[in-house]
Amino acid sequence: MATLQAIKYNDGQLEILDQLLLPESCTFIPIWNVEDAWAAIREMKVRGAPAIAIVGCLSLAVELRKLAAPETKEELCRLVQEKLDYLVTSRPTAVNMHLAAEACVKLCTQLTDNTSVNVAEAKDDIVKHLEAMLANDIADNRAIGEHGASDIMKKNATKDKLRIMTHCNTGSLATAGYGTALGVIRSLHTASKLDQVYCTETRPYNQGSRLTAFELVYEKIPATLVCDSMAAAAMKQFKIDAVIVGADRVAANGDTANKIGTYQLAVLAKSHDILFYVAAPFSSIDFQIPNGHSIPIEERPHSEMTHTGSIRTAAAGINCWNPGFDVTPAELITGGIITEKGVFKPDQLAPHQ
Amino acid sequence: MATLQAIKYNDGQLEILDQLLLPESCTFIPIWNVEDAWAAIREMKVRGAPAIAIVGCLSLAVELRKLAAPETKEELCRLVQEKLDYLVTSRPTAVNMHLAAEACVKLCTQLTDNTSVNVAEAKDDIVKHLEAMLANDIADNRAIGEHGASDIMKKNATKDKLRIMTHCNTGSLATAGYGTALGVIRSLHTASKLDQVYCTETRPYNQGSRLTAFELVYEKIPATLVCDSMAAAAMKQFKIDAVIVGADRVAANGDTANKIGTYQLAVLAKSHDILFYVAAPFSSIDFQIPNGHSIPIEERPHSEMTHTGSIRTAAAGINCWNPGFDVTPAELITGGIITEKGVFKPDQLAPHQ
Repeated sequence: MATLQAIKYNDGQLEILDQLLLPESCTFIPIWNVEDAWAAIREMKVRGAPAIAIVGCLSLAVELRKLAAPETKEELCRLVQEKLDYLVTSRPTAVNMHLAAEACVKLCTQLTDNTSVNVAEAKDDIVKHLEAMLANDIADNRAIGEHGASDIMKKNATKDKLRIMTHCNTGSLATAGYGTALGVIRSLHTASKLDQVYCTETRPYNQGSRLTAFELVYEKIPATLVCDSMAAAAMKQFKIDAVIVGADRVAANGDTANKIGTYQLAVLAKSHDILFYVAAPFSSIDFQIPNGHSIPIEERPHSEMTHTGSIRTAAAGINCWNPGFDVTPAELITGGIITEKGVFKPDQLAPHQ
Repeated sequence: MATLQAIKYNDGQLEILDQLLLPESCTFIPIWNVEDAWAAIREMKVRGAPAIAIVGCLSLAVELRKLAAPETKEELCRLVQEKLDYLVTSRPTAVNMHLAAEACVKLCTQLTDNTSVNVAEAKDDIVKHLEAMLANDIADNRAIGEHGASDIMKKNATKDKLRIMTHCNTGSLATAGYGTALGVIRSLHTASKLDQVYCTETRPYNQGSRLTAFELVYEKIPATLVCDSMAAAAMKQFKIDAVIVGADRVAANGDTANKIGTYQLAVLAKSHDILFYVAAPFSSIDFQIPNGHSIPIEERPHSEMTHTGSIRTAAAGINCWNPGFDVTPAELITGGIITEKGVFKPDQLAPHQ
């Protein structure tokens, strides 16, 4: 079965699956410009670090295609940079949009410096660069899936089928398609090595129960939903073989920022002697920050915790703490960091691999 | 401020706060007989092991008060036993209703054997015995609160104010009043030793966000709600001093069955070097079972996980695992087991203390 496609792009037309409407309704909405993309990212109609970067960049491609080429390349590049700077402000923790913006600005500089390129050609090159991200991300994710699945199978060579726990959503709904941690699980399933995936609900936004469960049911991958509070009991009862999660940002030393709850799964995995893996595109590794202490952690609105739709689920007047992410220290990532370039121990990370 | 009163009993009239309507509405419903009590317990209009036993027993008192005395004490006792057997089936994991039933049956036997007591007097004695449970439970809880608070203060003598994490609801809404784990927190607050209580949401039934948060706001105890996935991050960030939870049943070796999620809090507390306490009436200790392996764990309906009211929060078709409880091994209960008789290390438990 084809994997779920949540970002549809064709010749300057961009549509995304509105994840806020899942699981009730599977509805695509058009993105006409960077403002639409910024709002969709901020409101979490699209989420997941890779998907955020791709939707941001594709929204810029949509705008550039419609735009008459400015008079000068400098003017073009100023415009592109302004829009990228704006897109980066939509969610502060994920590194992918930052890195995508940097890469695009670098391209702008190269094109400006290259006297053999005129402004119309420069615009076309920028658009092509932005549009290529979609296919590249899917190819990277398939490579992540293969590397991860083969590493896990190697380390569990005596077992016929494996039981994997995952957190949040790192699948087709978080990436251009296929997924990172969920890509590894897809690859294990394709290799007939998956017994069962246990996905956590992932409060307060329920990315696990709404999104991951949706993908797993959609593709008929054997799966069981557990509440976040049940993780340790499930590890013990079902003898989980590995925990695989995604990453919003990995520091140079391997410390990993990911959805709130990741850190405690890593602690629990260690105490149950279960391998803990992070799966992410190599671009999620930010070699400019030495360790997790430097990663900004976004705090989200209390209403995410106190209400489900219009239903109040918490007593009026209660104070809440709602960090969107936490940082898992490198030493708890016992399985390794799975990227499209291979699986690395946290202390083996280096910029050019 | 007076603590919240969720079970109201007066001269054969019983009313309970319908906890399913919290936090939206604070509504009391009448309980006319054991069938009403059984249904209210099963539907979780009342929950918490001590409260279940008290509501069950008071519903029997309500019936007995209205009943014309049977012809013989044997007939009376057969009737009482039948009704108790039925009440015990309402929720299988909590031991308190079992123990309350056993104590009542024992009293019936004594009354039957005692030739100086006639059937009307026997009925009155049983009613008095059942009615005394309410006041006894509150007195026990206040003693639990005092013992627990003084132990925690002693072990943190250098600290001015303490940060406590708790799980589920163990307060006035789970007991006859005051509470067990929440009673300890109330006592710390009364002693001006509480900096902040961190209460977990307690999915899937949200006893923490709906009930504990309601009590804490009601009594103006400084409190912060966290999702179950945030427990480890909160322990680390806020430097929690102790975790205190309740118990549905404690085995002779100290293994403790409590709300799902308790086990993982104990693992996380240990790995963060935080004292972990269980607070429960001495009657929650079941010396007939040697360890936690023998405690039956109730599985609850999937709909608790897939829906919030009428809102679907999980993808249709996803399989769920929804155990109501888990077992925390005695060695993780590093602070001790707080009872009305004092604080015991798990290996110090003995039937006659």
